[in-house]
Amino acid sequence: MLAFGTRAHAQTDSLPSWNDGTAKKAIVEFVRATTTQGSPNFVPPAERIATFDQDGTLWVEHPIYAQVMYCLDRVPAVVKAKPELAKVEPFKTVLSGDREAIAKLPEGELLKIVAATLTGMSVAEFQAEVKQWLVAARDPRWKKPYTELTYLPMQEVLKHLRANGYKTYIVTGGGQDFVRVYSEAVYGIPPEQVVGTAGGTKYGYDKSGKPLLTKEPRLLLNDDKAGKPEGIQLMIGRRPLAAFGNSSGDQQMLEYTKAGDGARLALLVLHDDAKREYAYGPANGLPVTKVGAFTQALHDQAQKQGWVVISIKHDWRRVFAFE
Amino acid sequence: MLAFGTRAHAQTDSLPSWNDGTAKKAIVEFVRATTTQGSPNFVPPAERIATFDQDGTLWVEHPIYAQVMYCLDRVPAVVKAKPELAKVEPFKTVLSGDREAIAKLPEGELLKIVAATLTGMSVAEFQAEVKQWLVAARDPRWKKPYTELTYLPMQEVLKHLRANGYKTYIVTGGGQDFVRVYSEAVYGIPPEQVVGTAGGTKYGYDKSGKPLLTKEPRLLLNDDKAGKPEGIQLMIGRRPLAAFGNSSGDQQMLEYTKAGDGARLALLVLHDDAKREYAYGPANGLPVTKVGAFTQALHDQAQKQGWVVISIKHDWRRVFAFE
Repeated sequence: MLAFGTRAHAQTDSLPSWNDGTAKKAIVEFVRATTTQGSPNFVPPAERIATFDQDGTLWVEHPIYAQVMYCLDRVPAVVKAKPELAKVEPFKTVLSGDREAIAKLPEGELLKIVAATLTGMSVAEFQAEVKQWLVAARDPRWKKPYTELTYLPMQEVLKHLRANGYKTYIVTGGGQDFVRVYSEAVYGIPPEQVVGTAGGTKYGYDKSGKPLLTKEPRLLLNDDKAGKPEGIQLMIGRRPLAAFGNSSGDQQMLEYTKAGDGARLALLVLHDDAKREYAYGPANGLPVTKVGAFTQALHDQAQKQGWVVISIKHDWRRVFAFE
Repeated sequence: MLAFGTRAHAQTDSLPSWNDGTAKKAIVEFVRATTTQGSPNFVPPAERIATFDQDGTLWVEHPIYAQVMYCLDRVPAVVKAKPELAKVEPFKTVLSGDREAIAKLPEGELLKIVAATLTGMSVAEFQAEVKQWLVAARDPRWKKPYTELTYLPMQEVLKHLRANGYKTYIVTGGGQDFVRVYSEAVYGIPPEQVVGTAGGTKYGYDKSGKPLLTKEPRLLLNDDKAGKPEGIQLMIGRRPLAAFGNSSGDQQMLEYTKAGDGARLALLVLHDDAKREYAYGPANGLPVTKVGAFTQALHDQAQKQGWVVISIKHDWRRVFAFE
């Protein structure tokens, strides 16, 4: 019985959606090295932290971040509450529905939409709105809820790490409060393990005297680039053992992770599969797009510092669970 | 065998340092109600969050916060590195060793000491300094390391909650990075479950090109009063089911906790035992002291909103593990 149990365990493949290759091997070996008692790189369970970028690493980020779609979709409701905004840019352009003009809005104008749609309401109201939107919204290509567009191979990595005592964290440039609404249901990651771009809240009371937290436009953490290790320090207070990303926004998180002692794992998802997902770079001559930036410099740094590049085309047997 | 096991379990007292009374009963009943399958107030394990103030709730805060002692003790090293500070206030007064004059330093001057001793170095350097200090420093009354001055009854509550699937958090007005250095060893609370007053860090590289996080004076979270529920939202993103405090600084955290649905528990430690610890209020006519503020207003609110007051004198059979 015992022998059978051991054999059965050894034969189980925790990453069935991955093709055999460098990336799969690196993940499996890293987990084994850090969790096998007596291994020179063994790490006590309490210190097993792995961090994951979200957009482009755990789910699809093209053609536009889901959270940006949320903000744009919320504009009519915002204007309904404040009709004077209908004649003011950038709200006027968003209401026009002219996709080309919307895509051309400069970043400063987009920030006005972000502030109007993500702040000024209570945390509870915001959570209810996001929940409602997630049920109704559809990705334009697959006609499915955004929450179904997570990468099956990455879901397997999350589960494999947790099955081996790792705490899995999302460390995203997206809004911390936004991602927390669905992180547990979609990734098995509880809200307290989501680090993201975060604004302050203001404590107060509603008319009946009940405590209330109101979302404020005051930015506390811009969780992108250098903000990622800074956010990890603020929210976790330990250096990750493994970090997964897909763009220049993840460079510092991966560097910081790899610079720790013992076995460390840094991985980058390369979107090189236009047929099953998208192909964009600009590393390896892939096209430049508005979201995501797997630059040649990032590619070179990965080579130099021993980060693993995950090719969607070659490393992933399946991309989505619904396929 | 089974019957014996059940009986043995039922007879185990998880809070042996507590006298039977309202406070002990409230804690035991709350844990039972929220963790018993089929109970109307049952809460799934993922949502079981309990938060604890530190100073005066988990360990002694008198006659002066341990972290303030740390800052004062670090002044000679700071002045050694920057000799010009020796002639500048408040450093001059601290170096004089005149305890009365030091105690009289206004808050603005103390903040200069805080900035000089808690920021400007790397996170790793800071952690090493705090660790070293904790080994050497002694509380003036008990002549013991500060880390031994935790309240045994509260350590039992932490363990009892964790044994029942609760995640225990420290939510302190003290420095997040300071408390994180010892929270795991002293309370069994990992650094990622410490929410405290937090400054920003700056990501950069040392001379050899290795990534480095430098502690900055920029304040991100003043984790006191209204800052406590705000900090809980930032760092945890869920409302606690239970919260423990001891002063006006904990009022908003306790209100916020109690305002949630279902069974909620809010408790305040009242320091009314001058013999075994300290007696200070000013509620119940206890003396006003420089640290801690269990005001009459807080006492009245506790009565009105059903918060439990823990009397050290009456509720705690033992105060410290070393006794």
